Amino acid sequence: MRVKWDCEHIEAVVDQLDFSKLNGLVTVITQDWHTNEILMCAFANRDAILQSLTTGLATYYSRSQNRLWQKGETSGHIQEIKEIYIDCDDDTVLFKVEQKVAACHKGYRSCFYRRLNENGELDLVREKVFDPSEVY
Amino acid sequence: MRVKWDCEHIEAVVDQLDFSKLNGLVTVITQDWHTNEILMCAFANRDAILQSLTTGLATYYSRSQNRLWQKGETSGHIQEIKEIYIDCDDDTVLFKVEQKVAACHKGYRSCFYRRLNENGELDLVREKVFDPSEVY
Repeated sequence: MRVKWDCEHIEAVVDQLDFSKLNGLVTVITQDWHTNEILMCAFANRDAILQSLTTGLATYYSRSQNRLWQKGETSGHIQEIKEIYIDCDDDTVLFKVEQKVAACHKGYRSCFYRRLNENGELDLVREKVFDPSEVY
Repeated sequence: MRVKWDCEHIEAVVDQLDFSKLNGLVTVITQDWHTNEILMCAFANRDAILQSLTTGLATYYSRSQNRLWQKGETSGHIQEIKEIYIDCDDDTVLFKVEQKVAACHKGYRSCFYRRLNENGELDLVREKVFDPSEVY
């Protein structure tokens, strides 16, 4: 089941947030509802938060494309929102989600699939779960 | 034991990162090394990353004060870095840390101590672990 909010309460949710520090955006961290693995980090404007709340599907704002972006709109790898937390200074949102297939467009479940080693190099520490060339 | 990098490799680490999207900053998510709880979200410039790497202690850039800020410099609630991950597009860093006492200046272990309920209100879902008036 997705978490959704009805229209009556949506403004109250959005009014909690401080969009002023990043020119109309808040940071969004997306975490796996089951494992607490961090899946991705992105940004949302007011409309992206509203769409997330009304659909129950994580929706972000793409800075590179200047538009709303529902996660999974191309790949089908949607994120059903289970819980929403807001941080102490109201400028970061945490979505806990049920992730379909994978969050990362590079084929990994999480965007954080590389870990720094002591030589300053990035080690691949996760397995690919899909082939991006077949999805995008 | 803290993770540290020696001078020889530091530039290689910093050169992995893309500071261009947020005017010289990257987003940093800080996660509890033991429980995977998300503790906080902040920003770092190049110097903050360098200081984090050489000291092994999480150091951020304060946008409000325009200066480096080593977490715990006032409170003693330092964060020893255990692992560092970088996301797929190189603009977000994940510190996995050993958190002393608590991450949030409001007295909670995590800054994400409030969860949205179906009425659009924030419920307090964590217990305070210290009294901020005695620490700051």
